[in-house]
Amino acid sequence: MSVDSLKIAFQGERGAYSEEAAFAFWGNQILPIPYKSFKSVFDSVQSDSCSFGLIPIENSLAGSIHQNYDLLLRHELQIVGEIKYRIRHNLLALKGVRIEQIKKIYSHPQALDQCSEFIESLHGAEAVPMYDTAGSALHVYEYKFRDAAAIASARAAQTFNLDILKSSIENNHRNYTRFLVIARTPQPFTGTAKTSIVFSMKDIPGALFKALAVFALRDINLLKIESRPLRNSPWSYMFYLDFEGNLQDEAINHAINHLQEITSFLKILGSYPVGQEVD
Amino acid sequence: MSVDSLKIAFQGERGAYSEEAAFAFWGNQILPIPYKSFKSVFDSVQSDSCSFGLIPIENSLAGSIHQNYDLLLRHELQIVGEIKYRIRHNLLALKGVRIEQIKKIYSHPQALDQCSEFIESLHGAEAVPMYDTAGSALHVYEYKFRDAAAIASARAAQTFNLDILKSSIENNHRNYTRFLVIARTPQPFTGTAKTSIVFSMKDIPGALFKALAVFALRDINLLKIESRPLRNSPWSYMFYLDFEGNLQDEAINHAINHLQEITSFLKILGSYPVGQEVD
Repeated sequence: MSVDSLKIAFQGERGAYSEEAAFAFWGNQILPIPYKSFKSVFDSVQSDSCSFGLIPIENSLAGSIHQNYDLLLRHELQIVGEIKYRIRHNLLALKGVRIEQIKKIYSHPQALDQCSEFIESLHGAEAVPMYDTAGSALHVYEYKFRDAAAIASARAAQTFNLDILKSSIENNHRNYTRFLVIARTPQPFTGTAKTSIVFSMKDIPGALFKALAVFALRDINLLKIESRPLRNSPWSYMFYLDFEGNLQDEAINHAINHLQEITSFLKILGSYPVGQEVD
Repeated sequence: MSVDSLKIAFQGERGAYSEEAAFAFWGNQILPIPYKSFKSVFDSVQSDSCSFGLIPIENSLAGSIHQNYDLLLRHELQIVGEIKYRIRHNLLALKGVRIEQIKKIYSHPQALDQCSEFIESLHGAEAVPMYDTAGSALHVYEYKFRDAAAIASARAAQTFNLDILKSSIENNHRNYTRFLVIARTPQPFTGTAKTSIVFSMKDIPGALFKALAVFALRDINLLKIESRPLRNSPWSYMFYLDFEGNLQDEAINHAINHLQEITSFLKILGSYPVGQEVD
């Protein structure tokens, strides 16, 4: 790989679903750099150590990853893209190990939960929670367990030279994680756009209704609303909105100006092309 | 304690913040019953093993506890009360242990995070994540560690006969958890009411705006909105709304009827008295 490869920050061990999604988004000519925490991913992009970061923002079954909403608020970065990546859980073990030998299955609690039906079908195999999916593949590889398996991505199998004993073992195949691409500056693009913002409201009656009216009155389609607590004001909230359209559009511009009249805080997180579902 | 004591289901070990909040809500004449999972708390109320359950629904710093939103949807129970209980984290150790002896501090990752400034002030003490706050107090008690402490509730100190080396060690004292009281049937009450509902929308333009209009047009004050993914339809959501007023009120009744016109699913979770902040 050339030294000029695009450096992409992701959170987790090598072989994480985030790394797999990064290859799906950019193709193979990238250099993914693993970081221990989501905060370090943001910091590495802010400090220019990496050109882009790829962070999970919501899973279609488990919901939003709130820590990343909070980090978007606290960093001066732009959302410049997204990908809706299908999560295929796989059962990984050392080469030559057969499924009948498996007594323990390591993975992140959420992955164990999402594969509960398959795990139950292996009568007697015990689910053991770990901090990370790819980390559990690394664990099986490092300790050379022949009576244990991990649930992780196909990339983790490749990374740690493990066999895929069975693929797509998740209960619900409509399992997608939406990842956001973050960068220091907006990136030019064509095609259908969406925009993300975050705001808090003035203390006025019907405040949230009035905020949504700003968009409804201009036929701007809302895609998602998420609320997060205001840390120093219990039972008050920050609202994150995703809507169709580009900050370059006149209607969006008017909407943002209108919204400023009724918000006490407003931050634009970015306009970017609507991501496709990648199966 | 009499055999007639009110049985209250909570999740966690004895000494959990949920148990502490239960005593704050009902007083001392109750019999709190610990359950391993939130789901078992719901099940124990549904099956009449316990009269009430007390479940955390949101923390003023960390946000909503989504699993409990999902469980409210899937059970036929009513919300009949709430309490906003201040979370005071305490450093607990065996009797006679001094703060200078502490090398390890056990607790739930969220509690460790919420006490990060205090932990840093104890130069060299290592934070060790555990599954539960009260569980970490039990751990220190069981293993008779003299070089370790736990971060947990004052009730955990009492339960496991530990000393409180320092109280209120949380970074931010505006740290409240809102707990909901769940029961099989609505309970009569007086005073200011709030109502909780959950719904999904028909696929119509400006759907969420129209749903909020139902309340704004009748001057009904919204208190909270929360969205959760629809499991079989990625990027579609269930909405949970809390608003002021009682299902007995005429305006609320009209609002609910109006809302039914534009929702594909609507469930009433209950009307109950607005909870006070308990310091």
